[in-house]
Amino acid sequence: MFSTETYQRRRDKLANSNSEGIFLFLGNIENPINFEHNAYPFRQDSTFLYFFGISQPAIAAIIDLDEQKTIVFGDEATLDEIVWTGKLETLKSKSQKSGVSHTLPYSQLGQYLNNAKNKGRKVHFLPPYQSANKLLLSDLLGQPVKQLQASPTFIKAVVALRAIKEDQEVQQIEEAVRVSTEMHLLAMRLTRAGIKEGNIASEIACFAANHNCRLAYPPIVTKHGEILHNSHQLNTIENGDMLLNDSGVETQMGYAADLTRTIPVGKRFSSKQKEIYNIVLDALSAARDALKPGIKYKEVHLLACQRLVKGLVSLGIMKGDPDKAVAQNAHSLFFQCGLGHLMGLDVHDMEDLGEQYVGYTPGEPKDTHTFGLKSLRLGRTLESGFVVTVEPGIYFIPTLIDQWQSENKLSEFINYNKLAQYRDFGGIRIEDDFLITQDGYRLLGPELIKTVDEIENYRSHNA
Amino acid sequence: MFSTETYQRRRDKLANSNSEGIFLFLGNIENPINFEHNAYPFRQDSTFLYFFGISQPAIAAIIDLDEQKTIVFGDEATLDEIVWTGKLETLKSKSQKSGVSHTLPYSQLGQYLNNAKNKGRKVHFLPPYQSANKLLLSDLLGQPVKQLQASPTFIKAVVALRAIKEDQEVQQIEEAVRVSTEMHLLAMRLTRAGIKEGNIASEIACFAANHNCRLAYPPIVTKHGEILHNSHQLNTIENGDMLLNDSGVETQMGYAADLTRTIPVGKRFSSKQKEIYNIVLDALSAARDALKPGIKYKEVHLLACQRLVKGLVSLGIMKGDPDKAVAQNAHSLFFQCGLGHLMGLDVHDMEDLGEQYVGYTPGEPKDTHTFGLKSLRLGRTLESGFVVTVEPGIYFIPTLIDQWQSENKLSEFINYNKLAQYRDFGGIRIEDDFLITQDGYRLLGPELIKTVDEIENYRSHNA
Repeated sequence: MFSTETYQRRRDKLANSNSEGIFLFLGNIENPINFEHNAYPFRQDSTFLYFFGISQPAIAAIIDLDEQKTIVFGDEATLDEIVWTGKLETLKSKSQKSGVSHTLPYSQLGQYLNNAKNKGRKVHFLPPYQSANKLLLSDLLGQPVKQLQASPTFIKAVVALRAIKEDQEVQQIEEAVRVSTEMHLLAMRLTRAGIKEGNIASEIACFAANHNCRLAYPPIVTKHGEILHNSHQLNTIENGDMLLNDSGVETQMGYAADLTRTIPVGKRFSSKQKEIYNIVLDALSAARDALKPGIKYKEVHLLACQRLVKGLVSLGIMKGDPDKAVAQNAHSLFFQCGLGHLMGLDVHDMEDLGEQYVGYTPGEPKDTHTFGLKSLRLGRTLESGFVVTVEPGIYFIPTLIDQWQSENKLSEFINYNKLAQYRDFGGIRIEDDFLITQDGYRLLGPELIKTVDEIENYRSHNA
Repeated sequence: MFSTETYQRRRDKLANSNSEGIFLFLGNIENPINFEHNAYPFRQDSTFLYFFGISQPAIAAIIDLDEQKTIVFGDEATLDEIVWTGKLETLKSKSQKSGVSHTLPYSQLGQYLNNAKNKGRKVHFLPPYQSANKLLLSDLLGQPVKQLQASPTFIKAVVALRAIKEDQEVQQIEEAVRVSTEMHLLAMRLTRAGIKEGNIASEIACFAANHNCRLAYPPIVTKHGEILHNSHQLNTIENGDMLLNDSGVETQMGYAADLTRTIPVGKRFSSKQKEIYNIVLDALSAARDALKPGIKYKEVHLLACQRLVKGLVSLGIMKGDPDKAVAQNAHSLFFQCGLGHLMGLDVHDMEDLGEQYVGYTPGEPKDTHTFGLKSLRLGRTLESGFVVTVEPGIYFIPTLIDQWQSENKLSEFINYNKLAQYRDFGGIRIEDDFLITQDGYRLLGPELIKTVDEIENYRSHNA
């Protein structure tokens, strides 16, 4: 946990957001795998962590704006439970560390909210993403699940605070990046012909655990880098393949890192691989250098797209004017997704709160129709204190290529004959994490080797 | 998957259970961790695996008993989805391997059930344990979650089939035990002064993954063996400690193993540890030898309790007649839980279907009041083809000892003065997995070293 004062201050700021009613915070539960008592590892809700810092299943809290009360609801362990779990720190004690002296049994939460509602007071809640909390809210508020309406007031107040990282949060994220860079180097050392993708994935999970972290998201470790969310890791990797590793840890306090490297399974990239790699790296550098307060992340995204197209034109895979190609969305045959997202207590920070509030603003809404842009999670104007990922890539997806080619789509920008030589190339992504500073950006954590030379040099000594 | 014929046969048997209406099977979904698209590893529902063998999120199936139809409901990937996930085997193809030629889009499931209900036909479903499926059932059937009534007819028919393991299922379980025994030996080799409990836990998770398995349940790896479900693994282990390791893998097809060993962190047990260890081992041997069709597992449990008491009397920790002590429940100060449970596609097999149907029968109901017996998951008469765990233990739980002593509880059987010397002893559990055969039992998988001599010998060569 951070200091008591930290949580106090965050809650005070939230309470000063000029609202009325009750802010309701629901913690997460232990989610069953295949029966109730066989549960997935517990992960507390990030907003609950942000304002209370207590990582324990089945608790809730309220900030009562009208009566100026803050209460944590939850049950202390019974003797029967202590037999099974051992003596644990009490919720009372944890709450005090969080600066909350008022705790009540969980069963009293419903009554508290009911009383408030009967007085015509408003109960604000955040969008529930776990089904258990949808059911719980429905019970607590006496409304069908489908009629539950999360509070935009509450969401906006939370996003305004969580989006700007405190120094101690940046330190946490840098620690996550630091462990993640070591984890990536381990993965590079393990990468060799004959090993299965899944073996590397399980070794890095172990590495994270041994460093008091856990993986912030299911790692993507694949020779098929063109499969953007490849969670199947059954392939055996061979010389000539590249291995894409998109993985990061979260610290015990819940702060995430998100890094991607793509390396040759042998000691060197082929010249074809090197060419594509350097295009992606150029796009990353250009996008990174553009990062600063006041620029729209969507512009940074489009800049990266333009650089990708320029590179592909130089190889003869694309043709025509890069700016026009991007305006026509021709790059999306090779870069189908967004350039990056906010990062913090969630790897896609606050994604549960709704993209329209987190990655966009009412004045800068999302383009939800254009292929590519509709997958861009972050479009809004950057501010000092934001933490963002930058993760350009070039992906040759046979199914998509076939589809476009069958329609001869945007053939003024795509050289389908040349492209045929790359049909089975795979995909390359490179990703780093940045803090937006007052005058630009700062790479978070130690630098992880990234250029062709650095990677080939590392592999020649460690592969 | 098993053969098409396997799933056909299982479904035919189920359909022949003389019922009317529709058996509805809901698969599991991908459960969000901290936002919708960051999900825990997918695990299909075990009953769905048993009757259909298809491990894919967000599908359902029905066996329509009246119209003699079997249909799998689910959606094929769109081109947009293939961009993110790569080309995967179609649901149509998987369903055909399962012997189901009829597939429909997921959206048609509600309509199908509605039509049936409108004709006054009954929709049988199993107790939902994941909240998402509670919500889904509520939607599909138009009933509030709290009014959903699972079908005893359906439950009993499923339990009757799944309780008796086919040969190919026993082979799967033995494979799980085989990998788990190797995993336990690895844990023993890793156990040394200075290492953290969690390091061993993460290494065995990695081992499981590298053997195409996953852990069947969160492993208990702890120097505090007396904490029955210790999921905190932050302690550093030291010479003089014992390490309890309760862990097992499940195969790719979902079949579980469940093994426990307790070993000294140094090369040898202390004489005090050895004495308690041998009492637990004696209880395990006695219980194991009693296993056969026709005996109630509750009797086996009570036999083990009696042997534990006998041993504790020999050390002067308990006193009086062991049979009377057990009758008075005096053993439950040291053995607070049950001797074992069924095992199969779930480590606690079919626990989601309800203990009253799985571990007990209407004629042999559970004792839900007595401390100890109320934690016995399995009480019913054993049958050939059952797979059971046997896991006696002796646990010195300071909080519980203090509680009993303050009441001078059952002091005719407990020697509290002597017990004081064991207050911080910890706990020991030893667990193996058995198939009930026509004339007795068979240990499943290869034998894992278990006697004091075997363990000390292994440690003297590997610690």
